[in-house]
Amino acid sequence: MTMPMNLLEQMLNKRITLLLKDNRELEGKLVGYDDYMNLVLEDTEERTPELVRRLGTVVLRGNNVVRISLK
Amino acid sequence: MTMPMNLLEQMLNKRITLLLKDNRELEGKLVGYDDYMNLVLEDTEERTPELVRRLGTVVLRGNNVVRISLK
Amino acid sequence: MTMPMNLLEQMLNKRITLLLKDNRELEGKLVGYDDYMNLVLEDTEERTPELVRRLGTVVLRGNNVVRISLK
Amino acid sequence: MTMPMNLLEQMLNKRITLLLKDNRELEGKLVGYDDYMNLVLEDTEERTPELVRRLGTVVLRGNNVVRISLK
Amino acid sequence: MTMPMNLLEQMLNKRITLLLKDNRELEGKLVGYDDYMNLVLEDTEERTPELVRRLGTVVLRGNNVVRISLK
Amino acid sequence: MTMPMNLLEQMLNKRITLLLKDNRELEGKLVGYDDYMNLVLEDTEERTPELVRRLGTVVLRGNNVVRISLK
Amino acid sequence: MTMPMNLLEQMLNKRITLLLKDNRELEGKLVGYDDYMNLVLEDTEERTPELVRRLGTVVLRGNNVVRISLK
Repeated sequence: MTMPMNLLEQMLNKRITLLLKDNRELEGKLVGYDDYMNLVLEDTEERTPELVRRLGTVVLRGNNVVRISLK
Repeated sequence: MTMPMNLLEQMLNKRITLLLKDNRELEGKLVGYDDYMNLVLEDTEERTPELVRRLGTVVLRGNNVVRISLK
Repeated sequence: MTMPMNLLEQMLNKRITLLLKDNRELEGKLVGYDDYMNLVLEDTEERTPELVRRLGTVVLRGNNVVRISLK
Repeated sequence: MTMPMNLLEQMLNKRITLLLKDNRELEGKLVGYDDYMNLVLEDTEERTPELVRRLGTVVLRGNNVVRISLK
Repeated sequence: MTMPMNLLEQMLNKRITLLLKDNRELEGKLVGYDDYMNLVLEDTEERTPELVRRLGTVVLRGNNVVRISLK
Repeated sequence: MTMPMNLLEQMLNKRITLLLKDNRELEGKLVGYDDYMNLVLEDTEERTPELVRRLGTVVLRGNNVVRISLK
Repeated sequence: MTMPMNLLEQMLNKRITLLLKDNRELEGKLVGYDDYMNLVLEDTEERTPELVRRLGTVVLRGNNVVRISLK
């Protein structure tokens, strides 16, 4: 069995894709997280249906996270 | 009586179908979960009305989960 | 006085109708529940305005549940 | 001063009208409740703008309740 | 400094106007409340853009309350 | 470092502008608050896209608050 | 590993860009935060699709925050 938090640990320092509740997708290197699934990404790129934006280092609030996968 | 968490245990290593709050459906092998119903799926396929996407291994946040069933 | 959780107990092994927040209705045999009103249904049939679907055994997350009644 | 929970107690075995977050109204005899305002109604009638439906005995989840009044 | 709960205490037995999340406004005499801002109103009148309705004594669930003011 | 709650303390007895989740803006003198960011305003004026309304003294529930700034 | 709260600490006294749930973006100097991700910004500028507004010092409630990045 792979606990969700253990998978996050294995994803550290890898590029991930993140889907948020408002349908926004972010891609970046996962460099940190906490128990609420608040996340820290580096070299982040955000994609909405209209736009791609480079954001550098970002904090994402866990309660907006829908799914996390390896890039 | 089958407790919801016990059914998740029985579903481990089986392919499940997952409905999320935004109407997204994912199909994949359940390999992990925790008390908040955060889930880990492998060989995941995501279906929205517009799109099918292969996502590999994913973490899903429990508070977006609506229903879980065996494939 | 009938406590809500006691009524769920009386509904065990009976067919129930379940309304979810997204207006989805499920009908199935209630075989389990927990304190968060997470539910386990067997021989489940799901009805949306567009579709009837047979789903077998399902876990429903309690925070999406609106109402539960005997079939 | 009338505490909200005390008013629920006084409403026991009386017919009440219940408004839910999705604008659904239910009318029925209140036969039980708990600290989360989960409710049990008997001889329940549900009204949406489109439909009146007889539902018998129902459990309503408290976090969908907006207002409760005597019929 | 006037703590929000102290203001509710001062509003007891006075007519208040209540705005709910769904944009519904209720006017009535505040006769009770609890720590979750669940409220009890008497001689309640409810106004939606379409309708005025007399509701008598009502329980309102605190998590739908937006603002409370003296009539 | 200015903790959010300390800034609220500094705003006491000053006129503030408040944005709520439903896009409503209120302006008034902050006379109280609690740990949930429930607020008490005096001489309150509410602005929606359609309307300006004088409301006197109001309680606002913290979980609808988006931003607070000095007028 | 960079914990989300540690990154906020590193962002102190720097200009950040903040995305809120209602799609509002704020830019300002981060001068404070707490465990709920309530934030204090100075020299804040708010951008919605329609408008840019100067707001001075503001408190933002954490539960509306989606993402935080360095300007």
